[in-house]
Amino acid sequence: MKKILFIFIIVFSGSLYAQEWTPLCNGKNLKGWKKLNGNAEYKVKDGVITGISKVNTPNTFLVTEKNYGDFILEFDFKIDEGLNSGVQFRSKSLKKYNNGKVHGYQFEIDGNHSGGIYDEERRGWLYNLTANPNKINVLKKGEWNKARIEATGNSIRTWINGMACANLWDDMTPEGFIALQVHSIGNNKELNGKTVSWKDIRICTTNVAQYQTDSSAPEINAVANSISPTEAKDGWKLLWDGKTVNGWKGAKINTFPDKGWVIDNGLLKVLKSGGGESTNGGDIVTTRKYKNFILKAEFKIMPGANSGIKYFVDPGLNRGEGSAIGCEFQILDDEKHPDAKLGVKGNRTVGSLYDLIPAIKSKKFNINEFNTATIIVTNNHVEHWLNGIKVVEYERNNQMWNALVAYSKYKDWPDFGNAAEGHILLQDHGDEVWFKNVKIKEL
Amino acid sequence: MKKILFIFIIVFSGSLYAQEWTPLCNGKNLKGWKKLNGNAEYKVKDGVITGISKVNTPNTFLVTEKNYGDFILEFDFKIDEGLNSGVQFRSKSLKKYNNGKVHGYQFEIDGNHSGGIYDEERRGWLYNLTANPNKINVLKKGEWNKARIEATGNSIRTWINGMACANLWDDMTPEGFIALQVHSIGNNKELNGKTVSWKDIRICTTNVAQYQTDSSAPEINAVANSISPTEAKDGWKLLWDGKTVNGWKGAKINTFPDKGWVIDNGLLKVLKSGGGESTNGGDIVTTRKYKNFILKAEFKIMPGANSGIKYFVDPGLNRGEGSAIGCEFQILDDEKHPDAKLGVKGNRTVGSLYDLIPAIKSKKFNINEFNTATIIVTNNHVEHWLNGIKVVEYERNNQMWNALVAYSKYKDWPDFGNAAEGHILLQDHGDEVWFKNVKIKEL
Repeated sequence: MKKILFIFIIVFSGSLYAQEWTPLCNGKNLKGWKKLNGNAEYKVKDGVITGISKVNTPNTFLVTEKNYGDFILEFDFKIDEGLNSGVQFRSKSLKKYNNGKVHGYQFEIDGNHSGGIYDEERRGWLYNLTANPNKINVLKKGEWNKARIEATGNSIRTWINGMACANLWDDMTPEGFIALQVHSIGNNKELNGKTVSWKDIRICTTNVAQYQTDSSAPEINAVANSISPTEAKDGWKLLWDGKTVNGWKGAKINTFPDKGWVIDNGLLKVLKSGGGESTNGGDIVTTRKYKNFILKAEFKIMPGANSGIKYFVDPGLNRGEGSAIGCEFQILDDEKHPDAKLGVKGNRTVGSLYDLIPAIKSKKFNINEFNTATIIVTNNHVEHWLNGIKVVEYERNNQMWNALVAYSKYKDWPDFGNAAEGHILLQDHGDEVWFKNVKIKEL
Repeated sequence: MKKILFIFIIVFSGSLYAQEWTPLCNGKNLKGWKKLNGNAEYKVKDGVITGISKVNTPNTFLVTEKNYGDFILEFDFKIDEGLNSGVQFRSKSLKKYNNGKVHGYQFEIDGNHSGGIYDEERRGWLYNLTANPNKINVLKKGEWNKARIEATGNSIRTWINGMACANLWDDMTPEGFIALQVHSIGNNKELNGKTVSWKDIRICTTNVAQYQTDSSAPEINAVANSISPTEAKDGWKLLWDGKTVNGWKGAKINTFPDKGWVIDNGLLKVLKSGGGESTNGGDIVTTRKYKNFILKAEFKIMPGANSGIKYFVDPGLNRGEGSAIGCEFQILDDEKHPDAKLGVKGNRTVGSLYDLIPAIKSKKFNINEFNTATIIVTNNHVEHWLNGIKVVEYERNNQMWNALVAYSKYKDWPDFGNAAEGHILLQDHGDEVWFKNVKIKEL
């Protein structure tokens, strides 16, 4: 009886704790792989696969014949200076999609971008490492580097030489092949014949969740209008659920506006109505108030558009025409909308605290693309961030704040901006604007 | 030899450490005292002197025949509710001064003012206890209270029941009599016959400095244009010496202006010249710059006057007409000068940071009297105080400061108010203004 129990323990613990790795290359030839798209050459010698750059051929991929869904992939890589490469995973090559072009997640191999996740031939950068404060020169140039990719459900995490790189939450493609890229070098003859090498490529596909490791890199959630488990644990909630008008209403009515706003394919849209302030559907506000919070919203504007995100809003203050009263994170096409030139020293440009504090000039903003507005309120301390850059910082409820307000458009609203809490507002300024991923973390 | 040394030590230490007290009243009659000015009655019984209020008689004083200069005086006192009294010291009664009216320092006995120092029939309050944060209801109503007065050179300190009250530095009268006051009650019959009593009145006049005790009350220096030893120890210096133009020059010239300013009897005066900004003698500035400091200046203005104290001044900025450029502690007769109504929400009233931040409305200001301006600079944090009340507080070198400046008269001066250091300026705005006690403590 004792002997049987002993054996049982060994077998059971073995299945729990011994990670099973499968090599993806036999070290002698390219059995199990195929070449797609380009004509760069791949060789195998002494367990090392080497890809060789070739002029005038597109990106070339050495693709596994098998598909993989959840896995942990480890490999060593070495790359000649000047080359760009990457390792695809959960990727596809489909006749119907760009005539078979390899597309999907790529573990980037390219100088300081290495370890980031690029969505090849699809969405571009998903995790470009600017979000990761740890990521400084982890790549050893001209030497072998150790890579690790963990893909478990929506969680995709990467490491180089033990340093966490990307930490992505995404749901676009749950499985696909793995592929070794030799990037196109165009007709640059200087790069012709340069090489990128891989060795010890091995994959674990059993009990993957059990071997998943913690990442010190901050997570990016690429699933539209969702809260990832990491975000949920950190206190984030959707301020807009991506589908309904729950939690929102017109700023001056008790229902959601019956015109001017539409919900379409995960986007909350303000419809174009001639550029007037709150003249069509009107502003919308959250049904409840917020006090201390981090608010994030992605927004895209059409050229020349004007909109805004307001906070500390008291919809009861302005019952007349125009927008409801509150502090405004200005949304504007600075290039084409005349308001950017009005106001004082740029205090009506995108990211500014409207008519009060100009956003810093070195901000980054992309017309026709989604931009991220972040508003952080900690009692009287408020910050505006635009695309990861702090553009405005101020303290309210003090003499300087009141003196500044006294000079502005808000001078006649009593105690403007000093309320302990208020509604959050999305502005209808008669221009087409898209919102998504509107999230809040209460502090 | 040993025996002689032993006796010597006893005698010597006795003279050093045994405080010698002399009673001022023999406990039986008023020998050594005389009554002056009024007709209130004083009685002696069982060692207690009792003064009795009487209608329709002026302040009455029971005065010592002897004069005292440096001394420590202790006594117990008890006073009926509704009465006001006090104990004069270093006081005089001179035919040539108000026909013999008793005048000079008074240890006040009057509710919460008790223990303060009032300059009877001369300058009024010298130490009214508002400067002393310790002084809250030390007086026991209707009971015996213990008083102590230390007068040593310019240092005058008081205690009630062991709690430090006044701490004055003054040099007006080095010696005089001691007197017990029965204050006039006019024709108020309800107070007729009420009493104030003193007992155990004793004085020490030998080795006084040796028995002087530390006071926890903040010192007030009433000696014009002087630095007391306490102030010197605390780092204070005269910014204006009270006599010469040393350390000062015209803001736009290398010498002191030859007109527009005069030094007269310890006062630095701007002469009246029609109310123009820097059109007569022009502003004057310190010859050196200051970075972190507490600046105190007493100023008196004629009705309708305009002036100011500027700091972080760069005299090189404005070489044209008008005042030199810097942050300004506004000096103005808010009632009569039109500028008080201009600007935005009171940001040009007395005590304000001129054209930027209004002084709080509850400030106190006295026309035709000296007022105290205090400016405290600690790097980017700045405070204005007017007559002991904080009226303006702000942070510079940040987005909010720059946004506020952008709205003001200073919008075209590059980086206004953000200099790490600057000159201090007294403004000639063509109106008569008096300055004295201009002191600075560098931090």
